[in-house]
Amino acid sequence: MKPKAADPESTAPGNPRNDGERVTTLAGGVGAARFLSGLTSVRPAGSCDAIVNVADDFDLHGLHISPDLDTITYTLGGLVNPETGWGRSGETWNVMDELARLGGESWFRLGDRDLAVHLYRTQRLRAGADLATVTAELTASLGVSARLIPVTGDRLRTVIGLPGGETIDFQDYFVARRHSVSVADIIFEGAGTARPSPGVLESIRTARSVVIAPSNPLVSIAPVLAVAGVRDAVAARRESVVAVSPIIGGKAVKGPAARMLTEMGHEASALGVARLYRDLAATMVIDTRDADLAAAVEDLGMRCVVTETMMTDPGRSADLAGTVLRSVGGPIPEPRRADP
Amino acid sequence: MKPKAADPESTAPGNPRNDGERVTTLAGGVGAARFLSGLTSVRPAGSCDAIVNVADDFDLHGLHISPDLDTITYTLGGLVNPETGWGRSGETWNVMDELARLGGESWFRLGDRDLAVHLYRTQRLRAGADLATVTAELTASLGVSARLIPVTGDRLRTVIGLPGGETIDFQDYFVARRHSVSVADIIFEGAGTARPSPGVLESIRTARSVVIAPSNPLVSIAPVLAVAGVRDAVAARRESVVAVSPIIGGKAVKGPAARMLTEMGHEASALGVARLYRDLAATMVIDTRDADLAAAVEDLGMRCVVTETMMTDPGRSADLAGTVLRSVGGPIPEPRRADP
Repeated sequence: MKPKAADPESTAPGNPRNDGERVTTLAGGVGAARFLSGLTSVRPAGSCDAIVNVADDFDLHGLHISPDLDTITYTLGGLVNPETGWGRSGETWNVMDELARLGGESWFRLGDRDLAVHLYRTQRLRAGADLATVTAELTASLGVSARLIPVTGDRLRTVIGLPGGETIDFQDYFVARRHSVSVADIIFEGAGTARPSPGVLESIRTARSVVIAPSNPLVSIAPVLAVAGVRDAVAARRESVVAVSPIIGGKAVKGPAARMLTEMGHEASALGVARLYRDLAATMVIDTRDADLAAAVEDLGMRCVVTETMMTDPGRSADLAGTVLRSVGGPIPEPRRADP
Repeated sequence: MKPKAADPESTAPGNPRNDGERVTTLAGGVGAARFLSGLTSVRPAGSCDAIVNVADDFDLHGLHISPDLDTITYTLGGLVNPETGWGRSGETWNVMDELARLGGESWFRLGDRDLAVHLYRTQRLRAGADLATVTAELTASLGVSARLIPVTGDRLRTVIGLPGGETIDFQDYFVARRHSVSVADIIFEGAGTARPSPGVLESIRTARSVVIAPSNPLVSIAPVLAVAGVRDAVAARRESVVAVSPIIGGKAVKGPAARMLTEMGHEASALGVARLYRDLAATMVIDTRDADLAAAVEDLGMRCVVTETMMTDPGRSADLAGTVLRSVGGPIPEPRRADP
């Protein structure tokens, strides 16, 4: 029934996972997916690991939905809807249209092909497989060469505290309310007990470089770091860790990161992001529009690389990935990009 | 979010549920659906209750699937695939095709519109609604005027015992193995504790007539009767109960009923079915092809009505329903059939 997935524990010689050339990326959703798309285009197949946030996962209609894993899978599999950055291209909506007719919960729109992934994942989890195994099966089926590892297979859920004291699920905040309410608190339920998936800590410890993707630091990267052992493992590699700011010119490319940073008492700028990562990353990549912040970033004790970070097309994603790779961890072979 | 459903406890005057004209049918899948289609075409809207088997229900992909409820709903809503007698007409298969590509469990084919019903049901059950409430919502949305009541909202599951001692789930037997294996035992898991849904016993007690539909006696009707209080409630109405044989000329119109009857030590004939129902029904309806069995049926202490029972089109379903109604419970108004 299940496709053959790459053995995450393989130590076969010649495997780029083991030859010191592997790059491990801490990843959220669309921004991380675009970065990983560039990274995998300039690196050998199998040399890219991504440790993916699962705190946005939720249950709807009885199905286990993993938005960040799916966004990255669809992007790296060449299946993503290029308009939105998430969901499938050429998607159909037969199930959701009928569900709306029935008066069902249709605030989170699930396309037909996307639903098949949720059915697959849910069935396999119910059969006792862990999320890392199911993810390996799905990525193998959908032609993804990078290894995507959910940071944990245990329950980890972002809950948003509103100023009045009420708490709401992340997807209620993000999708149903279109992140248009103020955030007073961010809680990662389960963080105290969630164990890292097999391979997570090893991937961080043995990578040539660790990249913190341009994802929301507070709700995409923070829950990854909140899983037992992850923050320490990243901090221990600080010299080889490079973070890419998701904030450009004081704004998030997508989503509520800028507003959230301000509301949570941080500065909504590349410098504010650098402050969050200073103990974890020796190198910070910021956009050319934020060049005036470079000195302040360096005052935090980080190297600062200023470059174009807007990933408006695959070429720019690849350029950014190349710059990021060259910024840490000693010499690396020239990018192996396909001719345009 | 949820559609307004008919109040099953309504005692409004003029409601045919309460005026002694209501007919309550114990129902399985396709045979019962066709009978109910005929019945509702000759009776006033709202005067037909069906108490439906749920022991074939199962969980797949995390979804709660209720095959008999859905077959009846789609049939009475005019949505059923006329070729198969189950599933939706004009159905599409986008989710299932993608699931097959992913290597997922695709032995039970779920169409896109059908899936929407399973998503709706599962979400509502997860939200704490009981199966009877969810069924009332779905039938209201899909234009079904009959009241369908799942016999229980508690877990009740048919398990098939094979000759070697192995037990398998009903859908494994029925769909995956295409009922082509021998049956040594039939177990209704949960029958000891399953409570009838609200309205079930009242519907049986107060109906003008109770019909046992031409469904498989061993795996469709038996689990309905196995729920606490149902068999006794039916037996107490014996004079007003009429059973329709699903066996015609020693064969089932559809499915494994004949073979199952034999393997379980019964006679695969209308007489064999009559023996199973003799304590419950004063009247037995058998097919003209089985006219030679009428005397033997009457020897069991049942009235025997011989008529055409093959429901090959809606007109024949309506004719059968009319004959069944006239066979018990005193005078009933002439059938109110729409002109052909």
